[in-house]
This record gives sequence, C-alpha cells and structure tokens, in this order.
Amino acid sequence: MTERIPPATVSRMAMYLRCLRDLEEQEKTIVSSRELALLLGVTPEQVRQDFLIVGCTGKCGAGYDVVRLKHRIECFFGRDADHWTCCMVGMGDLGRALISSEMVQDWGFRYVAAFDTDPHRIGTRFHGIPIYALSQLKAVVQREQIGIGVITVCASLAHRAAGLLRAAGIRGILNFAPEALKTSEQTPIVLVDFSREFLKLAFYIQSAESRSREEQAQIQAVSAGE
Amino acid sequence: MTERIPPATVSRMAMYLRCLRDLEEQEKTIVSSRELALLLGVTPEQVRQDFLIVGCTGKCGAGYDVVRLKHRIECFFGRDADHWTCCMVGMGDLGRALISSEMVQDWGFRYVAAFDTDPHRIGTRFHGIPIYALSQLKAVVQREQIGIGVITVCASLAHRAAGLLRAAGIRGILNFAPEALKTSEQTPIVLVDFSREFLKLAFYIQSAESRSREEQAQIQAVSAGE
Repeated sequence: MTERIPPATVSRMAMYLRCLRDLEEQEKTIVSSRELALLLGVTPEQVRQDFLIVGCTGKCGAGYDVVRLKHRIECFFGRDADHWTCCMVGMGDLGRALISSEMVQDWGFRYVAAFDTDPHRIGTRFHGIPIYALSQLKAVVQREQIGIGVITVCASLAHRAAGLLRAAGIRGILNFAPEALKTSEQTPIVLVDFSREFLKLAFYIQSAESRSREEQAQIQAVSAGE
Repeated sequence: MTERIPPATVSRMAMYLRCLRDLEEQEKTIVSSRELALLLGVTPEQVRQDFLIVGCTGKCGAGYDVVRLKHRIECFFGRDADHWTCCMVGMGDLGRALISSEMVQDWGFRYVAAFDTDPHRIGTRFHGIPIYALSQLKAVVQREQIGIGVITVCASLAHRAAGLLRAAGIRGILNFAPEALKTSEQTPIVLVDFSREFLKLAFYIQSAESRSREEQAQIQAVSAGE
C-alpha cells in the first residue's frame, strides 16, 4: 500500500532537493543532518527522519553522500521517470513570467503548448511555445501527451480551464488563479497562493521587531540598574 | 520573550485565514476543528493545537466562532496594525503580474512604488503606481515609509536590489528572484520558489497513480480468485 506522506514532508523534500543541488554545485560531497538543518531552519532529528523515507541513513558522524542523497530524493519526486511536459492556460503577465522562469525549467518541467482566449495571441509563439485557442486544448493535450496543466487565467475562467484539462485527461493541475478548485483523487490540484508568502513575511517582520524591542528594553533595564 | 513559531505553523495559520474568510463569505458562523482539518488536509488535533497559539479554545462539541477566530489570526499576522506598504523591484512580466493580482491586495498589502532599470519604463505608471529608477529607491522608500520590498529582478541583480532595500531601511523582503539571498535577524527575507509547487504536484500525481494501479491489481486479484 502506498503510504500517504504529509504535505509538509513533501514540501521539505523539495527544499532539501534545492539545497543538495546547490551543495553539489559548490562541489561538496558530504553533508551532515546538522548542516542541512541549519540551512533550512528545521531540527537535525527531522532531517534524519525525512531521509529514512527515501531509504537514506547517514553513517553516524560521517554524514550523507550529497550525490546519492540527491538522487534518492529525485526518485521520490519521480525524476528517474521522463521529464514532465506542461501546458500553460492563460498567457497574461503571469503565464509569460512562469514560462520565462529558469527556476522551474531547471527541474525538468518543460512547456510544450499554451492556450489563451485572446485572438491576437492565438497562433503566435512565446519563447518558441505555440499559443492555441482553448477550443484546441483537448486535441493538443492528447497529441502532445501533456501531463501537467498550469492555470493562470482570471478567477472567472479557472473552473472552465480545469474542466477542459480534466476532460483532456491531464494528470495534474497547478492553479495560480485566485479561485479554489476542487481537487480529486484522480487529478491532483495544487493551489499556489502568493498571499501566504506575504502573510508569512509580515509575521516574521513583526517577530523580529518585537524581539529587537525586548532586547532593547533588557539592555535599558540593565543600564538603569547599574 | 517572543516565542519562535515554526515556519510550518505560520504557513498553516495563513491557510486557516484564507479558509475562514471563505467561510465568512458563505455566511457560516461556526466551524469545527474536524471541518477545518478536512478542508486543509491536517488532523483535528493539529487544528486545535494551532488555535491555542492565538488564544482560541473551541467549546467542546460547539466549534469555533468564525468571525472571532478570523480576527485572532489576523492579529497574529498583525492585521490589527496598519496596512502594509510595498514596493516592487523589477517591472517585468512577474512584477506586473504580482501588482495586478487580486490575491495579495485583498490582504492589505498595497503597492505604492515600483523600480526598474529600463529607461522606457522609468517615469511611467502601471495600475497607477509610479515606476522609478533604482537610484531613487532609498529616497522613495524612506519618503513613502515602505515596509516590504518585493524582488522580481533577474538572479544577477537580486543581491544589488536586496542591498539597496536594506540600506533604505526596509522591514522585510519577499524574494521571487531565482537566487538565494542571505536573511538576517533584522531584515527577514522570504524566498518564493515556484519549483517547489511543481515538485509537489509531480509527487501527488505519482502517488495518486500508484494508488490507482494498486487498487486495480487488487480488484483483478479478487476477480481471478472467484
């Protein structure tokens, strides 16, 4: 039976993967759970527990082999399989920004088609990727065997876009539209919500500032007592 | 002493907040930890534990008051304070997409200035927001009392942008550039990495498909045994 891995663990695996790739670029061959924990803001115990999931046990005191560990986590994400073909639904600013982004392409996610409702865009190409009408979605997704659909259309069009992708037999959807879409057992949907990152930052700013105020107050109290 | 809240908890708080806002729009007044857990894919115990942090204990069997709980979590994120003023550094596709996004503005994050290196953009406005040269950053950030800097420039410019923002006394940075920037105790930086969401989706697709294959195999085994 396939184990259900908690979403937070999957997120951490993605963080480790990026970190291990950076370490490999820096030609580091061995890394300890303590180093990784420090880099990512988690505990060393958490790191060791997570690596057991991908079948990696570091040698006590010797750390983990960077290349080997990276390979195991890539397998966890299915990188031993073929690269992922993607299509973009919505070629506004965000759709274009995502297609241009190096961040995502680096991990083997490759766009092969885009869809839009604007007749001026349909029939043109962006970064070499052909832009089709929404009516062509099903035929193109099936012909190109597209696995992932990325939705960046406005909220009012998001449900229609998801319905078209599902009907075309897409394997999963990444939803950047400001509209929650019902996910299903068969076709997973990941909602990307930027506002979460803004809220997180607001929280960290306030924590940092209140810590700093407390430290100031302590220093003043000590000075006053002297 | 200000407690250090783990990043995963802060992420969940942002998820609850979005969910509670949706429930409020649907005119729901009471919600149980079980309902919230189901909506967000966590355990009811986790939900109850998280709400203790913001000082909310649901009445046993009666659930939580939606409006009250939402207010408490807003306070956790500092929404009882003023709205956050932001500036955008980099007015390419991503910068424009973020300024246009309803998702973020809804939470009280308001752009008041943008910066770019392109002389054709400098001096113009986008959605009413003036675009300045990078050389004007310090003066504008201080004059407009901007709290958050959002970086969407290319990797090679990201460090310079962060340096300028820090020198201008910014309170925190949201980094969308494909380049890790060193965070500090004084100026928190949140790195937004889209590839993490793509990797997560790839994992969920494979889990769903392997579960489905296992179920098929079980059905076939049962049929063969009959």
